[in-house]
Amino acid sequence: MTPQSAPLGLPLPLTGATRLFAIVGDPIDQAGSPGLFNQAFRTLGLPAVLVPLHIPSAGLPDLIRVYRQSRNWDGLIVTVPHKVDMYSLMDELGPGAKSTGAVNAIKKAADGRLIGDNFDGAGFVRGMAQNGHSLKGKRVLMIGAGGAGRAIAHAVARAGAHQITLTDRDHGRAQALAANVAADYPKVAVRALAAVQGAAAAHEVIMNCAPPDGENLPVDLSGAKKGTLVVDIVLKPAWTPLLADASAKGFDTHAGIHMLSGQIDEILGFFGI
Amino acid sequence: MTPQSAPLGLPLPLTGATRLFAIVGDPIDQAGSPGLFNQAFRTLGLPAVLVPLHIPSAGLPDLIRVYRQSRNWDGLIVTVPHKVDMYSLMDELGPGAKSTGAVNAIKKAADGRLIGDNFDGAGFVRGMAQNGHSLKGKRVLMIGAGGAGRAIAHAVARAGAHQITLTDRDHGRAQALAANVAADYPKVAVRALAAVQGAAAAHEVIMNCAPPDGENLPVDLSGAKKGTLVVDIVLKPAWTPLLADASAKGFDTHAGIHMLSGQIDEILGFFGI
Repeated sequence: MTPQSAPLGLPLPLTGATRLFAIVGDPIDQAGSPGLFNQAFRTLGLPAVLVPLHIPSAGLPDLIRVYRQSRNWDGLIVTVPHKVDMYSLMDELGPGAKSTGAVNAIKKAADGRLIGDNFDGAGFVRGMAQNGHSLKGKRVLMIGAGGAGRAIAHAVARAGAHQITLTDRDHGRAQALAANVAADYPKVAVRALAAVQGAAAAHEVIMNCAPPDGENLPVDLSGAKKGTLVVDIVLKPAWTPLLADASAKGFDTHAGIHMLSGQIDEILGFFGI
Repeated sequence: MTPQSAPLGLPLPLTGATRLFAIVGDPIDQAGSPGLFNQAFRTLGLPAVLVPLHIPSAGLPDLIRVYRQSRNWDGLIVTVPHKVDMYSLMDELGPGAKSTGAVNAIKKAADGRLIGDNFDGAGFVRGMAQNGHSLKGKRVLMIGAGGAGRAIAHAVARAGAHQITLTDRDHGRAQALAANVAADYPKVAVRALAAVQGAAAAHEVIMNCAPPDGENLPVDLSGAKKGTLVVDIVLKPAWTPLLADASAKGFDTHAGIHMLSGQIDEILGFFGI
């Protein structure tokens, strides 16, 4: 069930007894979670609210101390650029966090220990499936091997992609991720490319998993073949320059919001809701 | 203006760009601020939310560090038992905080300094006036000389009470407050009583400013004179055992919610809204 009958972003009326959830990032304006989770809380009749929290990296240890000590704060969602930094602040890690070295959701166990896991990859694949896009047997080009890219690369491999080509401004980061995914999924052909130029033609799915870079396109689609699916996980703007370029060139597109909506149920379940 | 046209507790729909406010206390379930402030934010069309935050005293320094570092968290309201502890964590103190040694609202200056002030007393007097209750020339019996009692005693003196009698389980605390208020308001007759028994008869206004103590009444009203006003600042339950006892005995009553609603405008103004 994906609860979507209430208005986006609207929780139940708040009282002193409302349970607290937050999403932390830097910046945070672009976050879609407050819209989707508060809608879900209201639909479920749950007296809870999820708020955006803008904290720079240096503040994360303090934030985790406050979260540990709070008695009405039940869950923390983590977005860029904090997913990797949060990894080392956890008491226990779930499978999605272990495979990616990144954390995007943190809950408290009954004894107070903090458990971090990562649902970016599973949410992304679920969001693709919900929109009729299968990754099975596909050749996939990914731009960006940061926290989100890492989670998504593992999930794309798990979903049965035939080949994954990774690129990143930091080529060492792309190489490290390629080696890591290849070790976990030996049947998938994983490689890192030093430059993305000319790579579009050889792939059926092209995904941007890097942060927005103004009006600059993360990849040149001019060589891409008819039927290529172009994906952007950037949330703000929802209609990114890459998606606009892809659409203008006649390619099918898939926007970032689907990755978020795809993981709502999984994160709600992780939080015990 | 007291904005009350929106439903109690309901903010505008949340997004990543929603500005954050919180009320911190231990416990926090009883807090009325989430109801009133979110109603005000929605009425004002302001994309902001105020959430309850349950943190024990030991967590306050960490909380203040997070508040300082956050870039979308614009205001912090403080409730029992943290108002006195917050005092020493501020960079600058407003007049209400200075006169009471307690802080119930904290804002950030443009340069990042934290400014604490206390609107409990002013809010209490405004809430009384909004309900037609003047304190001018009155003999007032107050039970409780903690953070809230301290703020209210000063404001009652400022509002022109003729006499203030203070009692507290900790008699030293009542004596210290009496000396403090007397020094600031030499025209008011201020005294501390070691025991509240038998004191009701000599006062026109009887106020409980102490935390709830189950079903135990903070004061015996059996000797109180006809026309006495009985006040309880406790918020949960809204209809306290003391108010029920007063009403059963035919006295006029004034509940805790009026103190909160009385200070909404002042705190919104303090936060620059």
